[in-house]
Amino acid sequence: MTIARTICLGFLAVISVGTLLLLLPFSTVEPGWGNFTTALFTSTSAVCVTGLIVVDTGSYYTFWGELFILCLIQIGGLGYMTTTTFLILLIGRKFDFREKLAIKESFDRPFLHGSQNLLKSVFATTIALETLGSITLFLVFQQDYDNQQSLWLAIFHSISAWNNAGFSLFADSLTRYQTSIPLNIIICILIIFGGIGYQVIIEFYLWLREKLDTSSKKEYRFSLNFRVVISTTIFLLLFGAIAFLVTEYNNLLAEFNFNEKVTLAVFQSVTTRTAGFNSIDLGAMTIASLFLTIGFMFVGGSPSGTAGGIKTTTVRILFESTKAVLQGKQDIVIYEREVPSSLILKAMAVVFGSTITVLVVTFSISFIHPNFNFINIFFEVVSAFATVGLSTGITADLSGSAQVLIILTMYIGRVGVLLFMSAILGDPRPSRIHYPEENLLIG
Amino acid sequence: MTIARTICLGFLAVISVGTLLLLLPFSTVEPGWGNFTTALFTSTSAVCVTGLIVVDTGSYYTFWGELFILCLIQIGGLGYMTTTTFLILLIGRKFDFREKLAIKESFDRPFLHGSQNLLKSVFATTIALETLGSITLFLVFQQDYDNQQSLWLAIFHSISAWNNAGFSLFADSLTRYQTSIPLNIIICILIIFGGIGYQVIIEFYLWLREKLDTSSKKEYRFSLNFRVVISTTIFLLLFGAIAFLVTEYNNLLAEFNFNEKVTLAVFQSVTTRTAGFNSIDLGAMTIASLFLTIGFMFVGGSPSGTAGGIKTTTVRILFESTKAVLQGKQDIVIYEREVPSSLILKAMAVVFGSTITVLVVTFSISFIHPNFNFINIFFEVVSAFATVGLSTGITADLSGSAQVLIILTMYIGRVGVLLFMSAILGDPRPSRIHYPEENLLIG
Ligand SMILES: [K+]
Ligand SMILES: [K+]
Repeated sequence: MTIARTICLGFLAVISVGTLLLLLPFSTVEPGWGNFTTALFTSTSAVCVTGLIVVDTGSYYTFWGELFILCLIQIGGLGYMTTTTFLILLIGRKFDFREKLAIKESFDRPFLHGSQNLLKSVFATTIALETLGSITLFLVFQQDYDNQQSLWLAIFHSISAWNNAGFSLFADSLTRYQTSIPLNIIICILIIFGGIGYQVIIEFYLWLREKLDTSSKKEYRFSLNFRVVISTTIFLLLFGAIAFLVTEYNNLLAEFNFNEKVTLAVFQSVTTRTAGFNSIDLGAMTIASLFLTIGFMFVGGSPSGTAGGIKTTTVRILFESTKAVLQGKQDIVIYEREVPSSLILKAMAVVFGSTITVLVVTFSISFIHPNFNFINIFFEVVSAFATVGLSTGITADLSGSAQVLIILTMYIGRVGVLLFMSAILGDPRPSRIHYPEENLLIG
Repeated sequence: MTIARTICLGFLAVISVGTLLLLLPFSTVEPGWGNFTTALFTSTSAVCVTGLIVVDTGSYYTFWGELFILCLIQIGGLGYMTTTTFLILLIGRKFDFREKLAIKESFDRPFLHGSQNLLKSVFATTIALETLGSITLFLVFQQDYDNQQSLWLAIFHSISAWNNAGFSLFADSLTRYQTSIPLNIIICILIIFGGIGYQVIIEFYLWLREKLDTSSKKEYRFSLNFRVVISTTIFLLLFGAIAFLVTEYNNLLAEFNFNEKVTLAVFQSVTTRTAGFNSIDLGAMTIASLFLTIGFMFVGGSPSGTAGGIKTTTVRILFESTKAVLQGKQDIVIYEREVPSSLILKAMAVVFGSTITVLVVTFSISFIHPNFNFINIFFEVVSAFATVGLSTGITADLSGSAQVLIILTMYIGRVGVLLFMSAILGDPRPSRIHYPEENLLIG
């Protein structure tokens, strides 16, 4: 079986088990067996770390149901992370021809040779940061809830934030803590580090180790991936915060003082690109902000993390290719490194595949629900595809068929549209025939 | 001056003269000098062959005003056509190094050496097809109007259709002839041939000449551009017609019999990608059809014609790159010809630049008009950018600043976002430094 099919079926298997668990009589508060579509939707949303909900998690599910959801989030987040992290670290350094062949062959196995240390460090980082998040969040929640409640709230929201899942036990997501500085800081740190990707975190470790090792004289060189992810992420975070502050200044943010306005705008910027918590009512947002949010959600986070969307690296390649064309260059050069042409092709494929997926689903749901506000449908579909989980509130009102479309969209968005397609199409058989070049008229 | 600046300033000059002409007291039915924004909007819309209107052309302007508009349409359509046709025919065949240098230098002059025959054939085709269109349309209009009226209506709509301008003298565009088979056929032929690009028409001539020349034994080989444009256009036309038929079957098309339904759907498919006439009320369209229309408008027509949008060739490259990635290939091969990597870069730049333009303008107008229906704003902006000219009817209700944004969007869409940017940035200075390759994680 190809690695694409292994990953796709693996996700499917976890979603199926999750659906069955959430159907169990003791999972839901209402006595008896749960509703099938609701269980499937919730399980998919948790495994795909999306966070879209058709029922309020805190009041619909019992402690057991919530625990199942938390496990699904952790498996979904970690499972995807581990797989993609291997691939990146493998691609990240240069290989000779024989090594490349070996890697290509081993692609047919889910676990790669010599990856045990890597796996361990991925697990260790996850557990360490989730524990740290739980302890600090406990101190925040303890001021409003009893110890037992606070502990469960802290663990749940810490794991949900680290995995960028966006599930909350509060009916209003994090709106009740919208102006709490400690909560905003803790959640934002968990979201950013969880969504930035493992390669980045591991490189940071390596850099720190070399920095602290006074005997070593050589300077650590960050990879192109690290630099692109860090710079693009910082730019998007700042740009998002400023844009939200400006567009909602006299609307959603009107009742807050300036410091609170900034806090809310920063949180919105951090959460929008993939996490999916909200601390303001998105249903009351202006159409300008909703449209802006759609754009940020579609961009999404960084590769090899828990984030969705077309990813920061893809957007950077789009931007750099435009710059290159305007400068009359034939190649894309970022930080004095040339981007291989195969990556440019892949970036185009990601953009095209993602756009087509979003367009087809948005069109279909618009067809099913002609009387819905169009922007709410568009928002919902992009949120599902980029596994963000923000909603203007229409999720529960969608018909059964529209909910199934959203389930499918979350799934395709999580495994990646190219991986999904290649799982269906099977192994490629590259052709070695060369054809003469010929020009086409573009633009 | 660079060719980019020449083209941009040329369009600006024509728009300015047009604005002044439309301000003249005898141009408008109302006595006195016209409204400046209205004149600027109409002039830009005509020169950019868009067709968006803030006033009803037939009742607001006198015969002189209408004549000025017609001249602006003809100059806008032909001016752009001739320039781009030269470039294509030059790029279309292979050049050796010296010829390439010569072309590069001559880019600084608006008219290229040895292009007189080409210019003549462009003019001849335009006049021949516009005359043919006028005569046939005259026979249609004569059944409802007197000879003088019919003649003016025929000439105006023939030129407007050939240049894909979308201006009409009827307040309801072509709705009153929605089920007239002759009118539908004539207008569709004019739109398709006007929008398919000159290179395609000239290649068709050359093929026909070789076909009729019985002494010649060699088979004519169509260029890659010809094949891509023809096949992509046919696919999009058929797909559009079927999609409109299905989505509007029980809404806008409900009152018509099946043959009429098909006629209206085909016309809508032909007109949507760039022409901008309408034979049904777009304000009453379902959100699914509006969204579909937005997609088709953004794709637009084919290069070197009067069409706007990102163009059929760009979309084809996006599609083929996705196919190549899924097949594990490193290059894009279409019809046994390899697409140069510089073109792939250019396609990405066109997609990115166009998307950013549409996003920024849509966001800005959403910010200015928070109470408008979002999809109507999105529709209007894409229509302006792709120089289509369809509207849900909000054009005249837009505030002054929003109208200025639409004017700017029509202009950027017409000259092309890359040309516009390079006119601002000036000549590129290509660097010859080579950097080592490094991978990035995509998707
Ligand atoms: K999420
Ligand atoms: K038009």
